[in-house]
Amino acid sequence: MTHHQIRRGAYYDSVVLMQLQRALSALPGIQDAGVVMATPANLELLSANGFALADIVTTPDDLLIMVRAESDAVATKALDQIDALLARKRALSVDADYQHKSLAAAAQAMPTANWVLVSVPGRFAAQVAHEALDLGKHVFLYSNNVSLADEVALKQSARAKGLLVMGPDCGTAIINGIGLGFANRVRHVGVDDATGIGIVGASGTGLQAVTSEIHRLGGSITHAIGTGGRDLKAEVGGITALQALDMLAHDPATAVIAFISKPPSPEVAARLLDATRTIAKPVIIHFIGYPAPAQQLDNLYFAHNLRETAALAIRIKSQESSTKSQASRIENQDLASSSLDSWFLALGLLFVRGLFSGGTLAYESLLALQVVLTPIYSNSPIRPEQALPDARHSVGHCIIDMGEDEFTQGRLHPMMDYDLRLRRIRQEAADPNVGLILLDVVLGEGSHPDPASELAPVIAEVKAKRPTLEVVIIMIGTDNDAQGQQSQIARLSDAGARVFHSVDAAVGFVAQAYPSHFKNEYPPIALSSLTASPNGLTAINVGLSSFYDSLRTQGASVAHVDWRPPAAGNERLAGILARMKRKS
Amino acid sequence: MTHHQIRRGAYYDSVVLMQLQRALSALPGIQDAGVVMATPANLELLSANGFALADIVTTPDDLLIMVRAESDAVATKALDQIDALLARKRALSVDADYQHKSLAAAAQAMPTANWVLVSVPGRFAAQVAHEALDLGKHVFLYSNNVSLADEVALKQSARAKGLLVMGPDCGTAIINGIGLGFANRVRHVGVDDATGIGIVGASGTGLQAVTSEIHRLGGSITHAIGTGGRDLKAEVGGITALQALDMLAHDPATAVIAFISKPPSPEVAARLLDATRTIAKPVIIHFIGYPAPAQQLDNLYFAHNLRETAALAIRIKSQESSTKSQASRIENQDLASSSLDSWFLALGLLFVRGLFSGGTLAYESLLALQVVLTPIYSNSPIRPEQALPDARHSVGHCIIDMGEDEFTQGRLHPMMDYDLRLRRIRQEAADPNVGLILLDVVLGEGSHPDPASELAPVIAEVKAKRPTLEVVIIMIGTDNDAQGQQSQIARLSDAGARVFHSVDAAVGFVAQAYPSHFKNEYPPIALSSLTASPNGLTAINVGLSSFYDSLRTQGASVAHVDWRPPAAGNERLAGILARMKRKS
Repeated sequence: MTHHQIRRGAYYDSVVLMQLQRALSALPGIQDAGVVMATPANLELLSANGFALADIVTTPDDLLIMVRAESDAVATKALDQIDALLARKRALSVDADYQHKSLAAAAQAMPTANWVLVSVPGRFAAQVAHEALDLGKHVFLYSNNVSLADEVALKQSARAKGLLVMGPDCGTAIINGIGLGFANRVRHVGVDDATGIGIVGASGTGLQAVTSEIHRLGGSITHAIGTGGRDLKAEVGGITALQALDMLAHDPATAVIAFISKPPSPEVAARLLDATRTIAKPVIIHFIGYPAPAQQLDNLYFAHNLRETAALAIRIKSQESSTKSQASRIENQDLASSSLDSWFLALGLLFVRGLFSGGTLAYESLLALQVVLTPIYSNSPIRPEQALPDARHSVGHCIIDMGEDEFTQGRLHPMMDYDLRLRRIRQEAADPNVGLILLDVVLGEGSHPDPASELAPVIAEVKAKRPTLEVVIIMIGTDNDAQGQQSQIARLSDAGARVFHSVDAAVGFVAQAYPSHFKNEYPPIALSSLTASPNGLTAINVGLSSFYDSLRTQGASVAHVDWRPPAAGNERLAGILARMKRKS
Repeated sequence: MTHHQIRRGAYYDSVVLMQLQRALSALPGIQDAGVVMATPANLELLSANGFALADIVTTPDDLLIMVRAESDAVATKALDQIDALLARKRALSVDADYQHKSLAAAAQAMPTANWVLVSVPGRFAAQVAHEALDLGKHVFLYSNNVSLADEVALKQSARAKGLLVMGPDCGTAIINGIGLGFANRVRHVGVDDATGIGIVGASGTGLQAVTSEIHRLGGSITHAIGTGGRDLKAEVGGITALQALDMLAHDPATAVIAFISKPPSPEVAARLLDATRTIAKPVIIHFIGYPAPAQQLDNLYFAHNLRETAALAIRIKSQESSTKSQASRIENQDLASSSLDSWFLALGLLFVRGLFSGGTLAYESLLALQVVLTPIYSNSPIRPEQALPDARHSVGHCIIDMGEDEFTQGRLHPMMDYDLRLRRIRQEAADPNVGLILLDVVLGEGSHPDPASELAPVIAEVKAKRPTLEVVIIMIGTDNDAQGQQSQIARLSDAGARVFHSVDAAVGFVAQAYPSHFKNEYPPIALSSLTASPNGLTAINVGLSSFYDSLRTQGASVAHVDWRPPAAGNERLAGILARMKRKS
């Protein structure tokens, strides 16, 4: 016996709907109950659960209540109790003193509130968030189904005001020890530890997994800042992530930063990696499903998964603590460039030209250097925009694989015949915009019997003309190779080259010489604006009452807005009114 | 004063051309010299080096010799010496006793040769390689500019014969301690060590970098097998890599395998990762520029770069040595499934259904499980072919993100409201093809106050009906969370679930329960066929004389074929003749 009731255009908090469904299911004689907003997806789910919907006509704004019972009488009786059950549910929860009809009223009643939590249905959420920004509050925007255009507008508005918008669809944050949305209770810096790990995440459960694992491994969290899952998409450009990274970079309590994201857009990933290089703290990166450019690159460390992100953060923090005094780290926390000498700064303005005989060494170098040197070009590009029009003429920063067909037709491989590379080294060195020439030298069977005999004189020659030109060599070989590894290194070093044994060691040197040029053009977010008191948080909750309960339980000061859809049945007018109100 | 000479249709070994260019450059009064086959690329390079080409008419088959001298007289005198210089160069090198006019003649003179090295120009290389395979020899194919169709034909032919084709464009291999092509002298197993590291590489300099680093770190190499850079492209499908992995899997001296590749095709990468899981040895994987699916997955370990590949191989080998006796490892070297009990085998035939509340946990699980379970589907697919048509109905192996919009419109997030997941667990458990249900349980603020109170009874219920059904839980949370982590774990475990603290721990369990079904359908390559004697190598070199020199220096037995282009001026006819010859 399936009976149903439709409440046209009725709005209830989803917590209330869930509680009603449970209460109905628990009634004697009821076999199953469904209480949903009648969206097509929800109707399909009801149908999949055996509720017959054939004769029911609804719109997505209707509340549909269905019961399956052992008899018609039981079903009718159950539906008759709906109002009583709803009234009981609504009476619970929020204390009347902290309950308000509007965000404006709540803000007036609790003027110290720094945060507004928004969990109203998606199509109304942007309006509420704009209102919160206009009141000068940071926003935790839990709601999903907010358009990308609204997200961009909200984040641009927040950035201009020095405010943070976490979300939309932001599941998780921990600010000053208080969890917003879904969050685990973890060791908090200031309470459990002097310094800790700060986290930025374009991934809610990712933040939960990493903060929980850090806690399990004995570490403390400063802040965990959610950005919403789309923040690193091209349209949004990582606005919130950049603000959050900048904030943690300036937070004396944050010793190490972890930065995780669902698969980012490659362009935004490149920009954000560049930005993280300006931070004078180690940053552990885990962009899920994104190929890691290196194992370590300057202050960046790349993790394979969420668990390793936490483990690396803990390990690097303990290494940091043992090698640096607390004081010096705090002094050093401004842009990394302040610690670089003038040589590095001078070099940083000039181009890097890589001339490779080994294709894989060229590829691995490009993979890592594209994080450090942007834009960078190659005749063997990783991304289409890196394609070099003519491999014989370098442009900007450049990685040339001289083992490609265009250089080897009818002639020996460049590992055997250095002629073209020697000519190219002279060509690059004659360009006053070139600061560093990167070469590989591959020893062993089949290769040139004595590379240094040809390379060292040319390196000495170009260094004599331009002593500031850097020549960096990746040498692949062993102490058993016939060329004499030690003698090769000695002669190349004497000629003025710096010799490394692997791509990542050489690239690490280049990364240090080329600090990021990223400049944050927007006002920083004052750490003090996150919270009025040294501990805890003061917030206004608009939407799900369960978030009010959660914040209260954690000791935060919270006001609750008993939100209702505005101007029911005329959303378009309501939208226009809201925009007029904001502009006035 | 620039003078030139053209030798129409003349063919010379590139080593000879390089030596001629050097000899000309070294003559008194000569400022620069160029000796090249007159391809468009080479003409452009000459022009870029200041040689005027305006009045010179050539075809790519012509040899072009140019000199720039201080006077016409010097230039003319230099060009007059060309024949004398060429005669001198050709007289050197190969001993007459080991020099042959054809591969067939060389094979007759040295019947024990197991290998043919081919380094003739690309358009002739496939013919020579086919001839070598027809003689029953393994092929090291150094030549580039071989068509993909020829590569596929060669590799299919070799596979059917139980032979290996390394290449085309294979730069590097080390077989039984002897380097082929470009290779470094590294510690060799049997000489320096009882067991060592075997390497498969679709990357020549990658192989050199990894073998050199292993040597630097104190490790030994069994074999390093190059496949050519295109072996893991979709067209070729990793034929050589699969043969090489199988060979190393059966080599008692190989304790750990490293497998590197330039960016592979995703499909081939998936297939090869599946194949590596059948190997009862640790395999270190580095697919350059390819997102790592995990840090460790069953017997697979993922590295970030070439240096880490070597370091991981060394570390894992020392861990292996300390945990397993040499004898047991050798006994165990057949397919991993032999060590699995019947429970694992029974489970391995049934489907995995993941029901997630956390999107990132679903994504990370899918990223790793797609290596283990193929095909696998999801409503949040990583690759287009994984898209699930209808999220409400699972198909095959399946990862469902129940936090996606289709499940959350107008209702609470599945971390708060378990109703839909409980229904779905019952639905999956009722499917007799389902063997394992994978769930996440996220504790903390905002989440369900007591997940076990709802989940445990349903798990107990489905386990009571089907005791062999596995329920695996990824639990994210801390010991401070209000839900009581220990109590949650205890109650869920009591109900029959296996609870893990991270995605990778849970996925690691699933990987063990689901061994690869990959079956190698082709004849294995007999290890004894690589070399006639316990040490060293017996080979025929066709092409570059410098490879003959290199092999001789390393103590290999080598015959050399003084190769010339066949039927000069009529390659098409020569090709037809060669094919007729092979078919007869």
